[in-house]
Amino acid sequence: MSSHLTCFLEIDSQSDFTIHNLPYGIFSETPQGTKRVGVAIGDWVIDLAHLEAHGLLTINGHQDCFNQATLNKFIETGKHNWQKVRTALQSLLSAENPTLRDDVVLRQNALFKQNTVTLHLPIQVSGYTDFYSSKEHATNVGTMFRDPKNALLPNWSELPVGYNGRASSVIVSGKDIVRPSGQIKLPDQERPVFSATRKLDFELETAFIVGKATELGEPIAITDAWEHIFGMVLLNDWSARDIQQWEYVPLGPFNAKTFASAISPWVVTMQALEPFKVKGPEQQPKPLCYLEENIANSYDIHLSIEVQSPQSAQADVICQTNFKYMYWSMAQQLTHHTIAGCNVQVGDLMGSGTISGPTEDAYGSLLELTWNTTKPLTLSNGEKRGFLQDGDRVVMKGYCEKAGIRVGFGEVANSILPARHSA
Amino acid sequence: MSSHLTCFLEIDSQSDFTIHNLPYGIFSETPQGTKRVGVAIGDWVIDLAHLEAHGLLTINGHQDCFNQATLNKFIETGKHNWQKVRTALQSLLSAENPTLRDDVVLRQNALFKQNTVTLHLPIQVSGYTDFYSSKEHATNVGTMFRDPKNALLPNWSELPVGYNGRASSVIVSGKDIVRPSGQIKLPDQERPVFSATRKLDFELETAFIVGKATELGEPIAITDAWEHIFGMVLLNDWSARDIQQWEYVPLGPFNAKTFASAISPWVVTMQALEPFKVKGPEQQPKPLCYLEENIANSYDIHLSIEVQSPQSAQADVICQTNFKYMYWSMAQQLTHHTIAGCNVQVGDLMGSGTISGPTEDAYGSLLELTWNTTKPLTLSNGEKRGFLQDGDRVVMKGYCEKAGIRVGFGEVANSILPARHSA
Ligand SMILES: [Ca+2]
Ligand SMILES: [Ca+2]
Ligand SMILES: [Mg+2]
Ligand SMILES: [Mg+2]
Ligand code: NI
Repeated sequence: MSSHLTCFLEIDSQSDFTIHNLPYGIFSETPQGTKRVGVAIGDWVIDLAHLEAHGLLTINGHQDCFNQATLNKFIETGKHNWQKVRTALQSLLSAENPTLRDDVVLRQNALFKQNTVTLHLPIQVSGYTDFYSSKEHATNVGTMFRDPKNALLPNWSELPVGYNGRASSVIVSGKDIVRPSGQIKLPDQERPVFSATRKLDFELETAFIVGKATELGEPIAITDAWEHIFGMVLLNDWSARDIQQWEYVPLGPFNAKTFASAISPWVVTMQALEPFKVKGPEQQPKPLCYLEENIANSYDIHLSIEVQSPQSAQADVICQTNFKYMYWSMAQQLTHHTIAGCNVQVGDLMGSGTISGPTEDAYGSLLELTWNTTKPLTLSNGEKRGFLQDGDRVVMKGYCEKAGIRVGFGEVANSILPARHSA
Repeated sequence: MSSHLTCFLEIDSQSDFTIHNLPYGIFSETPQGTKRVGVAIGDWVIDLAHLEAHGLLTINGHQDCFNQATLNKFIETGKHNWQKVRTALQSLLSAENPTLRDDVVLRQNALFKQNTVTLHLPIQVSGYTDFYSSKEHATNVGTMFRDPKNALLPNWSELPVGYNGRASSVIVSGKDIVRPSGQIKLPDQERPVFSATRKLDFELETAFIVGKATELGEPIAITDAWEHIFGMVLLNDWSARDIQQWEYVPLGPFNAKTFASAISPWVVTMQALEPFKVKGPEQQPKPLCYLEENIANSYDIHLSIEVQSPQSAQADVICQTNFKYMYWSMAQQLTHHTIAGCNVQVGDLMGSGTISGPTEDAYGSLLELTWNTTKPLTLSNGEKRGFLQDGDRVVMKGYCEKAGIRVGFGEVANSILPARHSA
């Protein structure tokens, strides 16, 4: 990475959005205003459409890359241009460059305070896949619902298990979650009942965004897979455990997961994450040849979950974990996804699966944190939680930090509204 | 329905594409030519973009509905306009109307022989869901792979089980299928091997196309569900049974299904299918209130599968079944899909699930027809088939017929290419 860069804007040392980060998002000045591409820097958003219109940010052979309602067009211009734009922005924002620093009018028109703008879903999500790649999470779930002695199914250690999610229900941080209703099978009744979920849960995940498409029938080699990844976001894969338990055999989760999957608004690029690469866990058994990868293929990303009750003045941190615990890498996930011939598209979102760490305070879902309500959490105001209650607000955060350089994800935060159909 | 209409074009009595049908598709005059909306009539395609340009087909408040690469824009104009365009086309094509009949130049420019044009994927598939709604199919699969005494899982009779498929891999009839490779677990080996599938199969299905979108958090009431359905196609949900068996627990089928899902090029509208409505099977137990429907909610659609070996001069019909055997209706599927809050989009494709009838020659997959290779089929040239071999061509057809009026789907046909990665 480049050495420490300094921005001409004043940026808090604890800001997620340093000049080393420069994550992409979609913003508008008013809720219904024109959407365009912005980059977060400190407390500001810099308007890339404005810079493009002033000739300060051009991509050869492509016009109007930033005057767009999603990042897809910019991403489609290719990795070479992602790098060029990043370099150009770092230069424009650096303390040494007078172009933007000394142009009061340009600064006024191109920089907006983040807390005054509306942030939108950053990508048009072409397809949404969710993996299941945390060994700790899969083991916990298997222990609770199947057999503690054989918690991990035999296929789990051989391939990154995943399933197709519902792309249409991917939403951006901030949107409220309506408590879903559906069929629930109570243990003491012969038939299911129609009810609002009693087991509303979150899943702490990250997700990567595909940056380069492939054709049907053309698998991505493991050595090429990283070239297809544009960046990462935080993902809260909202889940209704009781609906899930009744519906998921034999074809997998459906309505339990399709009412909302929320992502953070800022897409952190793989280039910004590069300095935080680490080795992933040892893989035993050694994966089949097509999945074999002998490089640092994970990232040291600190992750946390906060829950705030409507009765409480403060949010409580209930989980701290790290992306580096993930067993399967993003390259392995993507390669496996395409090995039978499935094509991928720019804008595909691929979730990690719930990221649980080795200790009980590092579990990424309430299902695990409360061990399916048998060990309820106590919030700082004394309230107990098995699963989530109406009005609860869930905030997930993530950041990398090394040698004084911080690159963060911001947050994905949603509050829960009561069910539309009551039980 | 309107009484028998007569078209000024000569139409074979066994044609799927009578004036009572008028299915929509996307065609181009050459493989790389301009795509636009066409309607099949007899052996011809009528070019709706051309009619629109000549002012013969207008939709109030909408321009360029037919000069489009997909049907989505036309579908989005709403049900009222689907009906108006249908009526206008029946009038333009009728033997009594001179407008098109007597205009030699217009006929020359607006009518193309189907066998000279290229047909494309008719819709931009926003999301793809596949249900599992044939009781016979679910029972057969449960008998083979789980427990013959409890073949049907308890949730099956309570809700239309379904899962999210992979929209990007939906293809149109005619495209070749590359035999997929992946992980296969052989019974005599401890670990899986990487191999081309040895159990390549088809699934005979239909699918409906969503014509009216909803917002997240707003379920579709069962009484409104039919209003959200534009039309139907044939679907071959290509499947790799050995890959499926190893991967599918606990999150459902993934790579076994994402290498190709093929649909027929002509979308038959619900209006054209109206005369062929029938009651579905009795539902026992009576569905929960939100799924209750007391109307004729099924369709009498004759379906068949043909397989042709590359060594054979003829295709053999290996299955004849009917859509009317489906246990759950399309309205029930759609309502259930949204009951927890999932939104739907115009262009969503929703597969029925494999349509198996009550008799052994009415099973909709080779898995069932050959009872997982234990009862191989004998083709007319003497060859045997457990699952499909390279070079095999699979053709699925469907049609309705009543009182001398025929409304057909045409076909979905694909041939199998050898695996790219051999075992
Ligand atoms: Ca998940
Ligand atoms: Ca299927
Ligand atoms: Mg979801
Ligand atoms: Mg498929
Ligand atoms: Ni300006």
